[in-house]
Amino acid sequence: MSAPTVEFFFDFGSPASYLAWTQLPRLAAETNAVVAWRPMLLGGVFKATGNSSPVTVPAKGRWMTDDLARWARRYGVAFRIPAHFPINTLTLMRGATGMQLRHPDRFERYVDVVARAMFETPKNLGDPDVLVATLRDAGFDPAEFAALVADPDVKARLIATTEEAVARGAFGAPTFFVGEQMFFGQDRLDFVREALRAQS
Amino acid sequence: MSAPTVEFFFDFGSPASYLAWTQLPRLAAETNAVVAWRPMLLGGVFKATGNSSPVTVPAKGRWMTDDLARWARRYGVAFRIPAHFPINTLTLMRGATGMQLRHPDRFERYVDVVARAMFETPKNLGDPDVLVATLRDAGFDPAEFAALVADPDVKARLIATTEEAVARGAFGAPTFFVGEQMFFGQDRLDFVREALRAQS
Repeated sequence: MSAPTVEFFFDFGSPASYLAWTQLPRLAAETNAVVAWRPMLLGGVFKATGNSSPVTVPAKGRWMTDDLARWARRYGVAFRIPAHFPINTLTLMRGATGMQLRHPDRFERYVDVVARAMFETPKNLGDPDVLVATLRDAGFDPAEFAALVADPDVKARLIATTEEAVARGAFGAPTFFVGEQMFFGQDRLDFVREALRAQS
Repeated sequence: MSAPTVEFFFDFGSPASYLAWTQLPRLAAETNAVVAWRPMLLGGVFKATGNSSPVTVPAKGRWMTDDLARWARRYGVAFRIPAHFPINTLTLMRGATGMQLRHPDRFERYVDVVARAMFETPKNLGDPDVLVATLRDAGFDPAEFAALVADPDVKARLIATTEEAVARGAFGAPTFFVGEQMFFGQDRLDFVREALRAQS
C-alpha cells in the first residue's frame, strides 16, 4: 500500500503549531507517513470562523502558557514565547508558501529556520530587519525572499490554502487531516498517529 | 505521607467533565489520590472570565463532537450528547452542592445518577419533570431535593465555589488542581496523574 499522508495546516505564529512541528519527524517515522505541509494564515481562519486566539480570554492565556511549557518539557524540546508575541505572520507564511511553490528543495529548511527563530531562540520576526538578518544568516537571499513574498501567485496560494482549511472545518492551528478525518491541536498527535496506523 | 488530593471542579452540563468523571476512579486508584469534588457553575465561570462555550464557534463545536466521541471510544465509555443540549444546570449543580453539604453520604450516588442521565442515557434533565422522575427512580426524595436546591446556604456555597475557581484561574470545565497547579480539560488527565505521583 502507499504511504499514509498527514496534512499539517500550520502558522508560524501558533506556539502549538511549533510544538507539533517538533514532533512530526518522529510521528512520520513511526507510521511510515508522508507529511503534506499546508502553510495557512491563522488570522484568516479566525476571521472566517469567528474563532479567536485563546489569549483573548486572559485566564485562558495564562493557563496556556503553563500548558505549552508542560508539553515542551514532556517532548524535551526548547520552547519560549517571544517577547513581542503575537506578531503578524503574513510575510512569514507567504515565505513558506513561496518556498513550497518555487523552491521546494529549500522549503523544509525555511520552516526549520523560521520555527526555531520564533520559539526556540526566540527572535522578534515581526521586525523586518530581524527577519532579513535571520534568513541571511541561514543562507537565504533577502532580495529573492522579498520577490517571493510579493509574488501574486504566492499570495493567491496562501489565501487558497487558508480558504480550503476553513472549508474543510479548520478553526485554529495546528490542524491535521488524515484523509477527511480532522484533528485539532498538538495535543491530538496521538489520535493522528492512530489514524495513520489505521491507513498503513 | 498523606494521600495526594486532586480537586475536580465540574459542571454536569460539560461533556468533558462527564468524560473526566468516568476516568476519576481509575486515576485515583492508580495514584492513591483523594478526589475533592468541587461542583461549580460553568455559566458563572464563563461570565466572570469572558470565556464562552466552544460551540459558540460553529466549526469548533462540530470538531468537538467528533473529538469527544474519539475520547469516549478510547476510554471505552458510553457517551451521547443529549438532544436538548445545552441545558441550564443551575438546579443540578445546586443539587450537587446541597448533597455535599447536607447529605455527603449520598453525594457520589447523586453525581453518578445525574452524570449518567445527562450523557449516557441521555435524558433532558433541563425538564423539571424528567429530573424529578430520574431522581425518584434512583431513590431520592423529590420533596427533599426541592428543599435542598432552595436552601440559601446551598445557593451561597455554589456561588462561593464558582468564585473560588475563577479566583484561582479557572475559565472552563473540568478544571483540576493538584496543590496550586491547575489543569484544564479531560484531555489533561495524564498531566494530573503525573502531578499526583510527584506528590505521593
